[in-house]
Amino acid sequence: MDSKALWQRYCDFVQFYPEVQFSIDISRMRFAPNFLETIRPRVLKAFSDMQALESGAIANPDEGRMVGHYWLRAPELAPDEKLRTEIAQGITELQRFAAQVHSGEVRPEKGGRFENVLLIGIGGSALGPQLVSDALWHQSDPMKMFFCDNTDPDGIARTLTQLGDDLAKTLVIVISKSGGTVETRNGSLEVARAYEAKGLKYGPHVVAVTCEDSKLDRQAKSEQWLRQFYMWDWVGGRTSIFSGVGLLPAALQGIDIEQFLEGARAMDRITRIEEPLRNPAALLAQMWYAAGDGKGLKDMVVLPYKDRLMLFSKYLQQLVMESLGKEHDLDGKTVNQGIAVYGNKGSTDQHAYVQQLRDGLNNFFVTFVEVLQDYTASSENVSNMEVEPGVTSGDYLNGFFQGTRRALFEGGRDSITVTIDELNARTLGSLIALYDRTVGLYATLVNINAYHQPGVEAGKKAAANVVELQKQVLEELARFRGGNERKTADELAAAVQRPDEAETIYKILEHLAANPQRGVERSGDRGPTTSTYRMV
Amino acid sequence: MDSKALWQRYCDFVQFYPEVQFSIDISRMRFAPNFLETIRPRVLKAFSDMQALESGAIANPDEGRMVGHYWLRAPELAPDEKLRTEIAQGITELQRFAAQVHSGEVRPEKGGRFENVLLIGIGGSALGPQLVSDALWHQSDPMKMFFCDNTDPDGIARTLTQLGDDLAKTLVIVISKSGGTVETRNGSLEVARAYEAKGLKYGPHVVAVTCEDSKLDRQAKSEQWLRQFYMWDWVGGRTSIFSGVGLLPAALQGIDIEQFLEGARAMDRITRIEEPLRNPAALLAQMWYAAGDGKGLKDMVVLPYKDRLMLFSKYLQQLVMESLGKEHDLDGKTVNQGIAVYGNKGSTDQHAYVQQLRDGLNNFFVTFVEVLQDYTASSENVSNMEVEPGVTSGDYLNGFFQGTRRALFEGGRDSITVTIDELNARTLGSLIALYDRTVGLYATLVNINAYHQPGVEAGKKAAANVVELQKQVLEELARFRGGNERKTADELAAAVQRPDEAETIYKILEHLAANPQRGVERSGDRGPTTSTYRMV
Repeated sequence: MDSKALWQRYCDFVQFYPEVQFSIDISRMRFAPNFLETIRPRVLKAFSDMQALESGAIANPDEGRMVGHYWLRAPELAPDEKLRTEIAQGITELQRFAAQVHSGEVRPEKGGRFENVLLIGIGGSALGPQLVSDALWHQSDPMKMFFCDNTDPDGIARTLTQLGDDLAKTLVIVISKSGGTVETRNGSLEVARAYEAKGLKYGPHVVAVTCEDSKLDRQAKSEQWLRQFYMWDWVGGRTSIFSGVGLLPAALQGIDIEQFLEGARAMDRITRIEEPLRNPAALLAQMWYAAGDGKGLKDMVVLPYKDRLMLFSKYLQQLVMESLGKEHDLDGKTVNQGIAVYGNKGSTDQHAYVQQLRDGLNNFFVTFVEVLQDYTASSENVSNMEVEPGVTSGDYLNGFFQGTRRALFEGGRDSITVTIDELNARTLGSLIALYDRTVGLYATLVNINAYHQPGVEAGKKAAANVVELQKQVLEELARFRGGNERKTADELAAAVQRPDEAETIYKILEHLAANPQRGVERSGDRGPTTSTYRMV
Repeated sequence: MDSKALWQRYCDFVQFYPEVQFSIDISRMRFAPNFLETIRPRVLKAFSDMQALESGAIANPDEGRMVGHYWLRAPELAPDEKLRTEIAQGITELQRFAAQVHSGEVRPEKGGRFENVLLIGIGGSALGPQLVSDALWHQSDPMKMFFCDNTDPDGIARTLTQLGDDLAKTLVIVISKSGGTVETRNGSLEVARAYEAKGLKYGPHVVAVTCEDSKLDRQAKSEQWLRQFYMWDWVGGRTSIFSGVGLLPAALQGIDIEQFLEGARAMDRITRIEEPLRNPAALLAQMWYAAGDGKGLKDMVVLPYKDRLMLFSKYLQQLVMESLGKEHDLDGKTVNQGIAVYGNKGSTDQHAYVQQLRDGLNNFFVTFVEVLQDYTASSENVSNMEVEPGVTSGDYLNGFFQGTRRALFEGGRDSITVTIDELNARTLGSLIALYDRTVGLYATLVNINAYHQPGVEAGKKAAANVVELQKQVLEELARFRGGNERKTADELAAAVQRPDEAETIYKILEHLAANPQRGVERSGDRGPTTSTYRMV
């Protein structure tokens, strides 16, 4: 295609959405000439499924649940008055709470003002808040954000070390829908211990975000936590950013959550338009389908040319892969669906893996995110300096983006470009809402349930089994503690009557033996059949 | 396979490397029974290629260069006395410099002590140092690290904002092999301006890491920077972490670089063993081949169960994809090689995309990284607390790792496990060296040059073209500045006699118009053929 034809294709296939300050360019996607026509019936089906979902249908059949994340930013659309009131009140309440914290009306046990937020959560209860915090951070924010998003004790210790004595001025948010997320429970226990080690009570420093009457809710009540904010079972973790999960930390950080919600609301409006090419989410969903033939045959590489959006690729990785990575379709057929997503940021990644994108395996399509305005309205230390006569650092960033888009296309690699005029709470809200909808529509195109995560359970159950086995092994080791007897993993597996679990037990023993305070000592030649263990 | 057979397979296929405190388990890789035999001749060829490389052969034929990163940790192996001396002296010098900075002998212009390091670099000149810094960070480190790794002016401004007045106590390291990396040059110019805005000279606060007599070396001399540290053209960016690129910032942060080097050296020794199953790097290279049929058919998902290793997946993404993502093989045949790499950390990722790994597309294999010791020897705030009787947060981390490994395997998904006794400078050095060698051996298995990056040039050239076009467009706009005339992108493209570049020019204009201080005003209906522009 010569440059004139390509320019014409660009003019034909770039769509502007002035309501949200977005444009989307699909001119660099090589879909078949009749693709848009053949996919059309499925897209129309996706629109009608989406309409049913938004009206409160059981859109998550496996779990028998409604799917309501669109109501969070437009409570008037929720299917009944009770929900409408709860959602609207929830937002008002958390805004009031944030104002009370900022004013010092809600203050730490020992006085002063809460200056930091420590969010404890994992997956959907951490990644969204991390993205929002990083994308919209400014020096003048009233509170500084910290995160515990794993059950790595060293990782938790590190965050506590960074907080140091400021823990006394730190407000903790524990987020778990069910309250049964073990990683989050462990994080909260470790952090509570750190407060107590400093002679502080945990309760007056901590709030919960959870479902009403969950395990966490009951704990918060019985331990007299500062307060609870409620969410609902019809909000999935990966789409919970517009519930208290995302809004409470954002409001505390000083982010304009009204604008954030308004951005999502505005995007939701235009992604309800039932015209396959006028609806930006439908446009993206169709391109995903075209790229991977509806089977995820191409990985999606997400490249925002903007440092503040570096976590966006990780956010999409979670949203897309957890929503679309499914074994069965809605008819119960085995389909092993999904789209693999990765990426960091441009132009940095050009010095990392773009070599492979350009020359290597053509097993991907790129989504570029371009932000036209070089600084945010609140950026500090704005230089606007010319690094060459008439050229700024931002011009180079734009140049590298354009250059890579071109070089990839010339090499036969496809890309979508999402362009945003500027990055702020409103456009970030729009960006997230765009992909909420895209994932939902794409799920209909490939006939899957985007709103459950059955595969997560297997790993959790297997983990619980490991912890349970460890208890048995420790009991068995305690039986001959201090003596000269030593047993191999095989012998211990036999002793606890789990000969099928010798390997798991061996790996448990290796972990225990590497941590001297656990009192398990290893001897003998190192190896699964030769190492022996005893408790000292 | 029943649990007994699987345990046997584990015992057969887990290898211990006590010299480096590692073990590698390939029991969960489903390679064909005769695979190890059929691949053997290629592995032996890889050993002999590697031996030639280490002896100073031109292992990067396209660029006519030796490939010497193994010499950096064992100067005695370098092919001539001059190199041996330069490498050894380089290490001594940077250690001496770090000691002088720590003692205050080398001090900032206005007195006091250097307390921060701001590293300016991109790709191989930033990611390695970021990994090392994050993995080995402790509160007691003598200096705190900051990074500028992009030409995003807002990203640079953000780092400068975080530094604030501490800029006066900040030592800047500018890293660029050639000195011609535009992103790094821009970062340095922006940072220099920030010093000057505070009434400080840049030169007394900045050192360069570059090749002798490069553009950057000459700049450092003429602007009287504190000093320069030299690297060599036979060290590639993505393997430069054991040169001044990685060692200088690490030494300044207070990391034991002797141990870091020793860890790499020890790993290098065992990855020289010419036995396909005793050599850990050969083992991994063979598994990569088996997983993707030597064509990269499976993505590599890297899951360290350790917060401190979160950047390791990104580091491998760069190392593997830039090294292996090649269009041509060594015989000039078009092969489009590569392996796509992504991942963050466990168990966090179990709440993100592991749903897809378990249930969705089976287009990947996993590399788990397991660290047996829960804390590092220098960790602060060590709790060792029991979150349940006899169970710690670290036991749960281990449980989640084991659970996911099992659930994936039962679902037909393969994984490798790399186990490290503890994380410290030495084992981190070993871990990095393990993959340096694996990539090199795998390159021979698939007959490609792992040491060049020809595909990066296309994007750079295209970017330079964009910046050049912008200058012409700005000149043209200046011709009718302030008047009522307005032109479309098409008209401006014609005016600068680049009608083939209308799209590039349109996108340049949109970027300029979004940044009011650039003086380019947009009017008319928004769109590539309707928007008009003038300079105000």
